[in-house]
Amino acid sequence: MGWNTWNHFACNISEDTILSAAKTIVAQNLTQYGYEYVIMDDCWQAPARDNATGAPVADPTKFPNGVKALSDQLHAMGLKFGIYSSAGENTCGGRFGSLGYETIDAQTYASWGADYLKYDNCYNDGRSGYPLISFQRYQNMSLALNATGRPILYSMCQWGEDQPWNWATTIANSWRISGDIMDNFGRYDDRCPCTSMLDCKLSGYHCAMSRIIDFAAPLGQKAGPGRWNDLDMLEVGNGGMTYDEYVTHFTMWSILKSPLILGNDVTNMAAETYSIITNDALIAINQDANGSPATRMWKVLVDGGDLSLWSGSLVNNTYVFALLNTSPSNQTVDIEFTDVFFDEGPAYQTGTYTLYDLWQKSASGAWGLTVGEATGSLPGVVVG
Amino acid sequence: MGWNTWNHFACNISEDTILSAAKTIVAQNLTQYGYEYVIMDDCWQAPARDNATGAPVADPTKFPNGVKALSDQLHAMGLKFGIYSSAGENTCGGRFGSLGYETIDAQTYASWGADYLKYDNCYNDGRSGYPLISFQRYQNMSLALNATGRPILYSMCQWGEDQPWNWATTIANSWRISGDIMDNFGRYDDRCPCTSMLDCKLSGYHCAMSRIIDFAAPLGQKAGPGRWNDLDMLEVGNGGMTYDEYVTHFTMWSILKSPLILGNDVTNMAAETYSIITNDALIAINQDANGSPATRMWKVLVDGGDLSLWSGSLVNNTYVFALLNTSPSNQTVDIEFTDVFFDEGPAYQTGTYTLYDLWQKSASGAWGLTVGEATGSLPGVVVG
Amino acid sequence: MGWNTWNHFACNISEDTILSAAKTIVAQNLTQYGYEYVIMDDCWQAPARDNATGAPVADPTKFPNGVKALSDQLHAMGLKFGIYSSAGENTCGGRFGSLGYETIDAQTYASWGADYLKYDNCYNDGRSGYPLISFQRYQNMSLALNATGRPILYSMCQWGEDQPWNWATTIANSWRISGDIMDNFGRYDDRCPCTSMLDCKLSGYHCAMSRIIDFAAPLGQKAGPGRWNDLDMLEVGNGGMTYDEYVTHFTMWSILKSPLILGNDVTNMAAETYSIITNDALIAINQDANGSPATRMWKVLVDGGDLSLWSGSLVNNTYVFALLNTSPSNQTVDIEFTDVFFDEGPAYQTGTYTLYDLWQKSASGAWGLTVGEATGSLPGVVVG
Amino acid sequence: MGWNTWNHFACNISEDTILSAAKTIVAQNLTQYGYEYVIMDDCWQAPARDNATGAPVADPTKFPNGVKALSDQLHAMGLKFGIYSSAGENTCGGRFGSLGYETIDAQTYASWGADYLKYDNCYNDGRSGYPLISFQRYQNMSLALNATGRPILYSMCQWGEDQPWNWATTIANSWRISGDIMDNFGRYDDRCPCTSMLDCKLSGYHCAMSRIIDFAAPLGQKAGPGRWNDLDMLEVGNGGMTYDEYVTHFTMWSILKSPLILGNDVTNMAAETYSIITNDALIAINQDANGSPATRMWKVLVDGGDLSLWSGSLVNNTYVFALLNTSPSNQTVDIEFTDVFFDEGPAYQTGTYTLYDLWQKSASGAWGLTVGEATGSLPGVVVG
Repeated sequence: MGWNTWNHFACNISEDTILSAAKTIVAQNLTQYGYEYVIMDDCWQAPARDNATGAPVADPTKFPNGVKALSDQLHAMGLKFGIYSSAGENTCGGRFGSLGYETIDAQTYASWGADYLKYDNCYNDGRSGYPLISFQRYQNMSLALNATGRPILYSMCQWGEDQPWNWATTIANSWRISGDIMDNFGRYDDRCPCTSMLDCKLSGYHCAMSRIIDFAAPLGQKAGPGRWNDLDMLEVGNGGMTYDEYVTHFTMWSILKSPLILGNDVTNMAAETYSIITNDALIAINQDANGSPATRMWKVLVDGGDLSLWSGSLVNNTYVFALLNTSPSNQTVDIEFTDVFFDEGPAYQTGTYTLYDLWQKSASGAWGLTVGEATGSLPGVVVG
Repeated sequence: MGWNTWNHFACNISEDTILSAAKTIVAQNLTQYGYEYVIMDDCWQAPARDNATGAPVADPTKFPNGVKALSDQLHAMGLKFGIYSSAGENTCGGRFGSLGYETIDAQTYASWGADYLKYDNCYNDGRSGYPLISFQRYQNMSLALNATGRPILYSMCQWGEDQPWNWATTIANSWRISGDIMDNFGRYDDRCPCTSMLDCKLSGYHCAMSRIIDFAAPLGQKAGPGRWNDLDMLEVGNGGMTYDEYVTHFTMWSILKSPLILGNDVTNMAAETYSIITNDALIAINQDANGSPATRMWKVLVDGGDLSLWSGSLVNNTYVFALLNTSPSNQTVDIEFTDVFFDEGPAYQTGTYTLYDLWQKSASGAWGLTVGEATGSLPGVVVG
Repeated sequence: MGWNTWNHFACNISEDTILSAAKTIVAQNLTQYGYEYVIMDDCWQAPARDNATGAPVADPTKFPNGVKALSDQLHAMGLKFGIYSSAGENTCGGRFGSLGYETIDAQTYASWGADYLKYDNCYNDGRSGYPLISFQRYQNMSLALNATGRPILYSMCQWGEDQPWNWATTIANSWRISGDIMDNFGRYDDRCPCTSMLDCKLSGYHCAMSRIIDFAAPLGQKAGPGRWNDLDMLEVGNGGMTYDEYVTHFTMWSILKSPLILGNDVTNMAAETYSIITNDALIAINQDANGSPATRMWKVLVDGGDLSLWSGSLVNNTYVFALLNTSPSNQTVDIEFTDVFFDEGPAYQTGTYTLYDLWQKSASGAWGLTVGEATGSLPGVVVG
Repeated sequence: MGWNTWNHFACNISEDTILSAAKTIVAQNLTQYGYEYVIMDDCWQAPARDNATGAPVADPTKFPNGVKALSDQLHAMGLKFGIYSSAGENTCGGRFGSLGYETIDAQTYASWGADYLKYDNCYNDGRSGYPLISFQRYQNMSLALNATGRPILYSMCQWGEDQPWNWATTIANSWRISGDIMDNFGRYDDRCPCTSMLDCKLSGYHCAMSRIIDFAAPLGQKAGPGRWNDLDMLEVGNGGMTYDEYVTHFTMWSILKSPLILGNDVTNMAAETYSIITNDALIAINQDANGSPATRMWKVLVDGGDLSLWSGSLVNNTYVFALLNTSPSNQTVDIEFTDVFFDEGPAYQTGTYTLYDLWQKSASGAWGLTVGEATGSLPGVVVG
């Protein structure tokens, strides 16, 4: 959990952008909810590496005090510091990439106090197309990071090419499963052309939020503690979706155990946005020790979208389920416990459960209002 | 034919689990039906290999007397002993895998008296994606097993990636064709997302039984004596299907020449379960010397499923055919001998045949009741 | 053009089978029509290579006088001799294959007087899956054949895997584009599961004749003099199709410039069969110096099949076109010269042409009856 | 921008063909519009390379004064000179290719004064099928060209195999995205069989113009200054399309930032053709410094085709949008600025804009007539 510069600021970043956000994160108590990584995405680099040593150099205009000074300040605030590069000749923003420079880059990031690396996939000179070539390219940085001796969370931003869920588990902490998210609920965009990520040859970008959920559906089986499917950074608060849509966004990212990385301008955040990203009930599910992403139990087409039921198991014999409606109108649906507890079997399917609505608050103001008990089914649930 | 710990016990295994099952197998005369391999699946391993030698070590708590002692007892009962590992860094259950340790592992298994190896595909570090890389990874263990001098049946559990039916024939005795079976007749599950295994990029698991039959349909042509398509272990007796569904399961596995490996708790088996798995008529077809899997002659869609005709040739000029109905309702269908004997040609298509129903018993109590003679066609057969 | 043992005799071959066929070919004047290669397909081999030299050895029972003697007799009759092997560990029939033995095998075939090699794809130990690995495997034999100094026509039977039309042109004379043909007009068979050969992962066999035509449609562009798409051997005369269907079969193979290799028992041939395979008008088109396969100009679905127009250019400003009806009933269709001469442009589209029906005979008994002149279109043509 | 011999003259080229075209280009002021490269496509080669040096040799009959003399004359006219070869054993026209001869060929082209290389993909001996093998094959020539020290624009004609948009950006100036264009608006042709180029295994040729637009839709995201998607050479003026269709062709190539390479016989050009290719408003968009291809914002099926909206951003806060109608009849459609300015966001979507029709001329005769102002939407636009 943390915050990243890209979704809101893209290439327009500087020491100030990052420190302002960091101060706000602390001031608004977001650290207490778990948001601790402050990640400097693409475009922090100078035009070229150090001529003599080949070491990476930060843009001296944007970062007049250097990256180490920035990192130190973040650490002093109790935050962790994330940095970005690409497993290619260039980064996606056209800066120098790390392909062939893994060792010196990892050493430099560690010397700067980095705690996290987002590692992108642009300009890889044909080093993709089958699992082994992608594995080795990303493994090179993994080995380099480990060799530094500093714990650095390794976040692969490889867009789901060549089935990373099969081979990234032993080298990375998380891997992106698709092209970049777009701040939009469900619009099809030609720049994200695949209907599935199982063998997509153009991950692209401008992938609407609910399309990424669809991509994630078969992949939950591959994730677990320390090895996560990354559905991309959050768009909550960036303005392209309604409150209900952002609630859906945050809910699904939480129960699918995607990293929760804020992507809005935290220094200028509506109360509504704040209330969504501080739903500690969903954050608890996201961080649940089981580490088991919810599974889509069924999906049916409805006018203009689809309706699906998701179910996941948590520690202490608790469970989470969600109904997702991507259509433009309200839908009424019966929920059968044979579906919710399909994996758990007959004993669970006939059990009696206390239900909590995690987007309502109890009298004490805590998320998770008790909404009754149920056995076997929930007839006629309305999903807005 | 045999029994495997996984489908019922998963990781909860021990010497006792295995010996109890073995004793029951002998006591209930299952050996006489052909069930002889007792296979210890994943999670038998200690947390780590032997520090000094790199040799595999069994979990001392679960197997206090060691694997050799267990194997000896199984052999003393007239059974054969199967063991499990994965062609990866780890096994699917997270134990140490055999990638890079093929020789010492094969030598150790042989020294323990293993007669069978199930060899899985998890955590293979990107060593998949095209036939040669998968072939070489699985060939390494094949060569290591052969080098031991001990006959060890080699059962590839590689989930059908990279078309093993084309290249496994010269290195293995059988190869899995799909993701793991689920104890369910036909429910679609997102965790088994492919509609065909010809080029599936996520074999997954939770594959319903009848979906695996569909996957197997084009692949019978690649199997034959000593080289089998493995449709995964049986779920008969595990509770997720009805009697009729398990009958279908056992029938299709038999005529498709899949290995018949029990996956239930044999120590606690209903009479109905016992009667299915001891249908010696179908077992005889499964073990028929021709080794020729039945072929699907046609398939038509019906409400909620499909209807298909399967036909296979056996020794001594006998033939087996089956009608498979995956829909929820009874279906009536005409069977033409031009379809049943399509491969055999006109002379067979107009022949007269004595028909046996292999799920009814004759007066003497043997499976295979004579139900009449027929020429050319069987009009209006009802399939429940 | 020639004759091959497989389609009719499969593994049941001997010196006698081949010499009897050869004598009949000569006696029935088939050589005058162009059939000159007599090809001994799989199963001619002894159980093992020569222990000392590694050279291939023929089965001494089937070929008591050796292959050289057989070849000499064929040459004495004015015929050419073809042999068979596989670019794998074994042949499809389980005999020793040539993978790793290319040099000694080519040398031996040349010493036996072979003029043609059919080179199969079975048991290739994972040496397939992308163009380069298949190219190199087949190139090895190409280089070995060329190194013998004897002209040996090189016929790749590689089933169309990995797009051979792109890379076989520089190493072979022809390449199969699909799995094996089945003696049937159009029945779908699960053993030939792909709907296109552009990226088929299981070429299989039991491919109905008209399905192979469909596979061939996009591939004509890749063929030309000395580099041919091979649609597999002819089934004319083997009994699985009607006269009209075999006429369609022979017509399409001819205009698509597939090698015309007889696959029936020529020693026992109906007059009808003889009349089809000796249609010298179509043979002339097949052998036309342009070497340009007909192109499918359109295809429309009709009840139970489809209707398509094919057009090809020949030397001397002549053209061939064909209407193919794969449905079970007669179809009436207008033929527009804008379609027939789409490639040739407006001047041709408005030209006036003399039409010949190549399945009717003129008064002199020659195939190719003049059926009139036409300009612009042929309204209401009936295709049976 | 320039002119190429292939689309009109194919292999029938000579010094005279090229000089005549060049003189016309200058005489008709096409240079002032930006057309400056005169490209000699395939079939300029002698039957063989120089025996002694291996250097490429031009056909002495077609080019009696040599290539250098031709190039000098072009340069003297203020034009640039383009040459052609193939990254294979042969060129597509069967001449010697450059595979393995990259250095000597690049050196020779540079010594001849070449400013541009079109580099084709035929006969590549299986060197394709995954990104790395294609990258390395095309990188070899890129390095060789750079090593000459002469600036030579590098135009990859690799037909879009293996996703060149991912890896060609660092080695080439442009890359073809599909098989060859056909001078036809939208007819489906079996020789261009893929429905998308994302993973097409047979790029083929005879790709109708509007099908190439469809192929290009998801790929604009990969292009930018100095790295372009090449939709193939223009067919404007070759006779296979109507005036309106050629207007569509030129419009879409312009806004998609495809290289504009004339393919007609410029020495015999209708006034209508001239007026299309000299639309300097569209040429300005094509050459706009942003280098940002238009994106397809939506596409809807209509009878016999589809209707789509394309939008792109230009320098100086100007934008271009186009409605494309591939159906045979006129269509009326509402255009919403929420779609046109989807990427730019709400502020733009509610802005007021001055609209120009780039196919009408102002009173002064310049392309780009002001057709009014609009805010929010354009109701009921008719697209012919």
